[in-house]
Amino acid sequence: MGNAERRQVPDARKASEPMHSLFYPRSVAVIGASERPGPAGVAFQNLLRAGFRERVFPVHPKAGTVHGVPAFARMADLPDEVDCVVIGVGADRVSNAIAEAAARGARAAVVLASGFAELGGDGRRRQAELVAAANDAGMAVCGPNCLGLVNVADGIPLYSAKVWQHLPKGGLAILSHSGSGAITLSASGRLGLSHVVSAGNSAVCDLADYLSFLAEDDATTAAALFMETIHDPSAFERAMASMHEAGKPVVVLRIGRSKAGAAASAAHTGSLVSSNEAFDAFFRRNGVIVADDMDELIETACLMTTLKSRPAAPGVGLINVSGGEVAHACDVAESVGLAFPRLSQATLAALEETLPSFATPGNPLDATGMVFADATLYPRCLAALAADPAVGLLAVMQDAPTGLGQDGADNYRRIADDVVDHARTGTKPVVFISNLAGGVHPHVRAPLDEAGIPVLQGTRAALKAVLNAAAPRRSGSDRRQPTLRPQRKWVARLAGGRPFSEHETKAFLRDHGVATTAESLATSADETAAMAAEMGFPVVLKIASGDLPHKTEVGGVVLNLGSEAEVRAAYARIVDSVARHAPDARIDGVLVQQMVVGGIEAIVGLARHHPFGLAVVVGAGGVLVELMKDAALALPPLDRDEARALIGKTRLATLLEGFRGAPAADTPALAELVARLSEIAVAYRDHIEAIDLNPVSVLPAGRGAIVLDALLVPSSREGTA
Amino acid sequence: MGNAERRQVPDARKASEPMHSLFYPRSVAVIGASERPGPAGVAFQNLLRAGFRERVFPVHPKAGTVHGVPAFARMADLPDEVDCVVIGVGADRVSNAIAEAAARGARAAVVLASGFAELGGDGRRRQAELVAAANDAGMAVCGPNCLGLVNVADGIPLYSAKVWQHLPKGGLAILSHSGSGAITLSASGRLGLSHVVSAGNSAVCDLADYLSFLAEDDATTAAALFMETIHDPSAFERAMASMHEAGKPVVVLRIGRSKAGAAASAAHTGSLVSSNEAFDAFFRRNGVIVADDMDELIETACLMTTLKSRPAAPGVGLINVSGGEVAHACDVAESVGLAFPRLSQATLAALEETLPSFATPGNPLDATGMVFADATLYPRCLAALAADPAVGLLAVMQDAPTGLGQDGADNYRRIADDVVDHARTGTKPVVFISNLAGGVHPHVRAPLDEAGIPVLQGTRAALKAVLNAAAPRRSGSDRRQPTLRPQRKWVARLAGGRPFSEHETKAFLRDHGVATTAESLATSADETAAMAAEMGFPVVLKIASGDLPHKTEVGGVVLNLGSEAEVRAAYARIVDSVARHAPDARIDGVLVQQMVVGGIEAIVGLARHHPFGLAVVVGAGGVLVELMKDAALALPPLDRDEARALIGKTRLATLLEGFRGAPAADTPALAELVARLSEIAVAYRDHIEAIDLNPVSVLPAGRGAIVLDALLVPSSREGTA
Repeated sequence: MGNAERRQVPDARKASEPMHSLFYPRSVAVIGASERPGPAGVAFQNLLRAGFRERVFPVHPKAGTVHGVPAFARMADLPDEVDCVVIGVGADRVSNAIAEAAARGARAAVVLASGFAELGGDGRRRQAELVAAANDAGMAVCGPNCLGLVNVADGIPLYSAKVWQHLPKGGLAILSHSGSGAITLSASGRLGLSHVVSAGNSAVCDLADYLSFLAEDDATTAAALFMETIHDPSAFERAMASMHEAGKPVVVLRIGRSKAGAAASAAHTGSLVSSNEAFDAFFRRNGVIVADDMDELIETACLMTTLKSRPAAPGVGLINVSGGEVAHACDVAESVGLAFPRLSQATLAALEETLPSFATPGNPLDATGMVFADATLYPRCLAALAADPAVGLLAVMQDAPTGLGQDGADNYRRIADDVVDHARTGTKPVVFISNLAGGVHPHVRAPLDEAGIPVLQGTRAALKAVLNAAAPRRSGSDRRQPTLRPQRKWVARLAGGRPFSEHETKAFLRDHGVATTAESLATSADETAAMAAEMGFPVVLKIASGDLPHKTEVGGVVLNLGSEAEVRAAYARIVDSVARHAPDARIDGVLVQQMVVGGIEAIVGLARHHPFGLAVVVGAGGVLVELMKDAALALPPLDRDEARALIGKTRLATLLEGFRGAPAADTPALAELVARLSEIAVAYRDHIEAIDLNPVSVLPAGRGAIVLDALLVPSSREGTA
Repeated sequence: MGNAERRQVPDARKASEPMHSLFYPRSVAVIGASERPGPAGVAFQNLLRAGFRERVFPVHPKAGTVHGVPAFARMADLPDEVDCVVIGVGADRVSNAIAEAAARGARAAVVLASGFAELGGDGRRRQAELVAAANDAGMAVCGPNCLGLVNVADGIPLYSAKVWQHLPKGGLAILSHSGSGAITLSASGRLGLSHVVSAGNSAVCDLADYLSFLAEDDATTAAALFMETIHDPSAFERAMASMHEAGKPVVVLRIGRSKAGAAASAAHTGSLVSSNEAFDAFFRRNGVIVADDMDELIETACLMTTLKSRPAAPGVGLINVSGGEVAHACDVAESVGLAFPRLSQATLAALEETLPSFATPGNPLDATGMVFADATLYPRCLAALAADPAVGLLAVMQDAPTGLGQDGADNYRRIADDVVDHARTGTKPVVFISNLAGGVHPHVRAPLDEAGIPVLQGTRAALKAVLNAAAPRRSGSDRRQPTLRPQRKWVARLAGGRPFSEHETKAFLRDHGVATTAESLATSADETAAMAAEMGFPVVLKIASGDLPHKTEVGGVVLNLGSEAEVRAAYARIVDSVARHAPDARIDGVLVQQMVVGGIEAIVGLARHHPFGLAVVVGAGGVLVELMKDAALALPPLDRDEARALIGKTRLATLLEGFRGAPAADTPALAELVARLSEIAVAYRDHIEAIDLNPVSVLPAGRGAIVLDALLVPSSREGTA
């Protein structure tokens, strides 16, 4: 039974769980197995090669034998029950096969065929039938439209590609929506693997389900995802919480980011931010490390699975023997956002004594070419750098290209030997980085591999991996849940579906603790003038109508009115202009509004970002909104600190600090408003489609942040997520 | 004499040229050669191994023999003249050695020792002596503080590192300020080389000198530079012009970019733009391809030297057999700025017929996994994509990782074979891209290498290389020289060195065809009021003083004055406020200025960017200057089209187009102003330190661009470059 012997036989309880039957099947039927070269044939052969001869059953209408193994015409003919089936028949016969397999005890299935939801139409119907059959049977299903999965740790392939026998073993699980992605990443030659899952359409089990299982899997220490989308954000959050609890990091490469903009919400705030930012916010919130390309994914996963311990401090100390290469490392580090901490005075003094007189101590550290003349220099530099309290991770960056002759490699081998010696007694984790992606000379690499020191390749991808590994990991599971509850009257009003007028939106906001301009609704010139006089001048008049989201365009706004006479005249102008430009609009009246001056204009909003629901957006308001594309996005809820951090990502923050001699604005009040809006997003997640507060006037410090204009769009139907 | 036999003996004329003696020496003396492991010893051994036994002469005070070759105590003792010397003695004996070598006929020298300008102080003096000795002798000198150079084409090492014997031959010259950079890049295993030059301090010969020589060198078809700085921009421009004329592309990786900001000019405009942007502008102008890291440099150089022909159209057609990998390619392409052209209707129709029904024709093209079931599909896809008129370069992106088993690699080998078949008859250049940086399975790679098809590694670096290769190349040499000549009166005034007042700066601008506000200088309240009345209201009053660059801060500006009475009052306020805030400032009077309203505010300026002299900067003006960091930079001169393109790089361009319903502004007038300022930069390059036009009011289309405020700082000494 091949490598499967090397692991303990799963206990009976676990074996009965569907997901366990998928990853650790004791017996497998391959439906559609034949000697032809198709997917089912390859999957069957893979199982034979894996030592499953006594425990794999070909099922084929013509029966006979397949590669010498007696076949059965139907599942019903099998001599015994099986844990799992690999279904290799055409799409239209899959749901029947699932039902038949369930009747023979199978708790799990791999569906190889394509022809499901990816085709739309009939395919979508077939996928719904597949899901129904699996749910009826309580089965775990991998696929359809996939290669299946390989348990590398135990040598069990339920896999229709030939690439699996030589995969190196290790702690990394690769989960990929793309079959090709699964092959490429698993065969990169850089990663030690526990499992490889080609998840295909993820009709029944998605990456979140696999992750939840792998969080408990002894063979797995980390996961790398090649992802197309997230079908169920909540399930993914729970899976990530389990992975965090188990201390298993997750890195993701999401593909299709360049097209994601098309799905952006139509609401004004949403239009500034592509869905990619919602995914990034979701990943950040849940502590998922994000890679930008395959090489970054590989280097990050390599480091995650081979670094001896988590760095105790986030700082990276980097050493090289060339000034030019140190400069190159600095340039690339800056471009990927990695900052090297300054060394302590004690470390600098130690290095000053250690280094030749022409060298300059620092981080990154140029140990200079003198290391080749003085064999004690490099070890002393390593020791000094590692002793610095700001250094949590020691990164040895070194050119060691594969094209060195043996002669040339000798020098570099000595560096590697010194690194191994240091790591033997040193307490801080060490990583070796080749500044070229193309590989490391084997003579240099050998001692590092033997000592279990991670070897990364390529300056850019490796520094990104180091940044990822050194950064503290956050889990979404430990965050405070907000206390704001939906109010029955507002839920009822939102159910109507019609957009709120500015007046109504502001009433909603005030009811939930958000400050807005003082205002009253008037229906005659006299009433308008009286209200203005009571409120105090100057005032603003605005047409009040849920049908007119763009009031300025119909002449519905007049600012800065200083007297009753001006107010009366403005009232007449507004009524006249609106009647001409929008004769059919329902008019509630005219809003008399406090005029707020002297604030910094911000925009704050909620907009729907599939599949995550409402996201919070904040940025510079007024004319700067579109010009500066300054919005930052996060997923609710946010507490005040998180809201403040979000504001800090925008150029608005520069304005708020007191730009060009202006007084500092009340940023805490804006943060409070953003946090409050994020609680509204949670409480009314099923009822609100978008909220657009534009502008919010952020007054000088201590004087608050006030919503000047606002628009709320209820969900067109409840439960949209 | 080893590989040197394979090339023609250089003719006598060429051999007499110093640079030729450096790259193609017939005989070499090694001063300081011994059997010890130091640099001179290694260099001597390298020459012996290269077959130079009869033509290399060790020079050492103790004479005797070195590795069996009789040594000479002094250069004067040599039996014959030599072309070149490798100087391996200590820094303080180098300039003597140069003189002695010159006396024995040497036209070229390699100076290995460090201890020169890189140390400052005494080292700088030693370097000046070295330069003087070399200039006296008319010698080409490589170094000091370098490894020397290797003529890979002919197997001639004047090189103190052991890494040279196995370097693959090809058309690429590597020129590196860093010795370590020279080793890493040359030994990457990816590049076929003609020459490797470790240029060190470049005291005598710099990269520009080597490039100028290599432009004429038969063995060299392209160059890759690992650069710290440019010492002489004009020499570099001339060298690039020669390389362009010879059809030899150049790619550069400049290191130390992350520190370069410190050298930025102190002038207001300059503070927005780091010197890195000046380097980029210089490289762009001279058609130098810029790489951001070593892997990009390697992939770009690899493509430059192996692509069969220059693409006739700039468009890239990309093909892959996986939808997931196509999406990944799109994501990464967008992040590096590579856009794939749309295919023609004819191509789409052809692909529609070719592809399976579930596939979608497009570029990048997903040929789908069906290529493994239908052997004719992939070749037909290649043919259709290559036939599209928008496609100039065919990029085959494919996973082919080194960890595939032989079984797994077979499928991918078929793709490679199809690509080779296509390239045999196809007319458009083809490149194969492995989406992983770590390498390509040898079974897949073999037929590609044999057919001479470039194989690139790593999605990001490869797509950047393709972008670089497909982009049209510009040469700086073909650009129009401006006609504006310096005016004698202004040269005299600038020689004074004192900053110009606003009034004087505007007079200078008007004298050179730049429109400014109408204005007059007044020295009393009566005169001020009278001038305002004549000019027409509203007007602006400003204090006039070369000592007060920041007029607003001393209460020296009052805007929007609508009557003579307001003007008189404002005059009194200004005089009073300035007397209090700046009692010692020299006051010329009060400027009465036309008030311009309704324009978009821009900032235009000149600032010095070492080593290139004055650069032109343009961006959004007013409060947006610092908030948006919106400036774009170019090196003068610019014609109107180039100025317009520069404006197009800024967000200002969005404002000018008529942002949010505003009328379009007079962008052509602004472009004219920018071009004119760039001509001023050329004409007065030795006399002006900075010009700051802030704001320039760009009026609605057809109404011009007018300088509202301006500041000119003359050079503190003439000739600063």
